[in-house]
Amino acid sequence: MILEGIVTTRNGDGSSNISPMGPVVDNKMESLELRPYKTSTTYGNLRRNGQGVFHVTDDVHLLARAAVGRILPPPRLIASSTIRGDILADACRWYAFRVLSLDDHEPRTRIRCEVVDQGRIRDFVGFNRAKHAVLEAAILATRIEFLPVDQIDAEFKRLSVIVEKTAGPQEKDAFAFLQDYVLGHRHFA
Amino acid sequence: MILEGIVTTRNGDGSSNISPMGPVVDNKMESLELRPYKTSTTYGNLRRNGQGVFHVTDDVHLLARAAVGRILPPPRLIASSTIRGDILADACRWYAFRVLSLDDHEPRTRIRCEVVDQGRIRDFVGFNRAKHAVLEAAILATRIEFLPVDQIDAEFKRLSVIVEKTAGPQEKDAFAFLQDYVLGHRHFA
Repeated sequence: MILEGIVTTRNGDGSSNISPMGPVVDNKMESLELRPYKTSTTYGNLRRNGQGVFHVTDDVHLLARAAVGRILPPPRLIASSTIRGDILADACRWYAFRVLSLDDHEPRTRIRCEVVDQGRIRDFVGFNRAKHAVLEAAILATRIEFLPVDQIDAEFKRLSVIVEKTAGPQEKDAFAFLQDYVLGHRHFA
Repeated sequence: MILEGIVTTRNGDGSSNISPMGPVVDNKMESLELRPYKTSTTYGNLRRNGQGVFHVTDDVHLLARAAVGRILPPPRLIASSTIRGDILADACRWYAFRVLSLDDHEPRTRIRCEVVDQGRIRDFVGFNRAKHAVLEAAILATRIEFLPVDQIDAEFKRLSVIVEKTAGPQEKDAFAFLQDYVLGHRHFA
C-alpha cells in the first residue's frame, strides 16, 4: 500500500528538508520503499547520509505547504536519538529509517529502507473528505508544470465542493492556500 | 468538520445495526451531530433508545459492505459497559454517546449527542488514496437510485486509477465489491 506522509532528511548544512512522500509500506511498517526523483533534495540527502524519518500526519496545512516548498514558518522539530534526523513534533506517528539499498538507474529512484525506531505522538483523526481533497489538490499543485490548465481548474472545482461540505478551518485554509498558489503561479508564469 | 465513520445502535430485538455515518464533530470529540434520514434504522433506534457508538476506522471493506447493507459475516462486537450499545472490536477508536436533542422536523434529522465514553483499539493507518477512493465509491453506491448511470461509471473509472496505483489487498477487494454491487444492481433493477 502507498501511504502518503512527510519525509524529513538532513541537508548538507545540518538543516532539515521536509517533503511530502508516498512510500510503499508493509502492514507492520517495518520497511518503506521511497521513490524520489533524482532531482529532489530527499534523494540527494538519502544518497549522502542514508537516513531519515517518515511521518504519518493529518496536518494538511503542513502537507500543502511542504508540497509546494513554502514551509515558513517551519514546523517544530525534535532530533531523533537513533539516527541523524528530525521528527516533526506535531506528527501523528513517526518512523526513523535507514537506507538498505538505493537504485538510481532511472530518473525516479527506488530506495529501500528499514524502520529502526518509531513513536506515536497523537491520533490521526480518521476519514475526513476535505483533508483528502486538500491532499489531492496538493498533488495537483506539484504537477502544475505538466498538467493542462483546464484539467487543474476542473479538479480544483470538483474538490472545492467537498471542502465546502466537510472541512474544518484547517482544511479550508490549506485549500485556499493551494488555490492561491495555483493562480499565482499562473500569473507569474 | 465532518468525520466519516460507522455508527452502531441497538435494534428493538437487541441486535446491532451498523451504518456508515459522517457526523459533524468538534476537535476534542466531545460532541457529535448526526444527520440520519427519518427512513433510516439509525434514526429509529436513536429515537427509541437515545444511545449508540461512533467509530473511527480505516477498514474500508467494512465501510463498503455496511454502506450497501451487506455485512455478512458480521464484524466482531463488544458490548459497551457504559451504554446499551456495541463497539466494533476492530475499529481504530470508538466514542459511546447519548442523544442530547433530536430534531426531526425535516426528512434529514439533526441529532445532537454527547460522548460519554471512548477508547482506542489501534492506529488509523493515515492517508492512503485508495482507501479514500473506496470511501468515495461507497458513497456513490448508496446514491445509485438517484445518480445518472454515466456519472457513476465515470466516477468509478476515475477512482479505479487511484486504487490501481495505491491500494493494498483490502482496498482492492473492497473496490471490486462495490463495482460488482453497482453492476449487479443495474442488471436486476
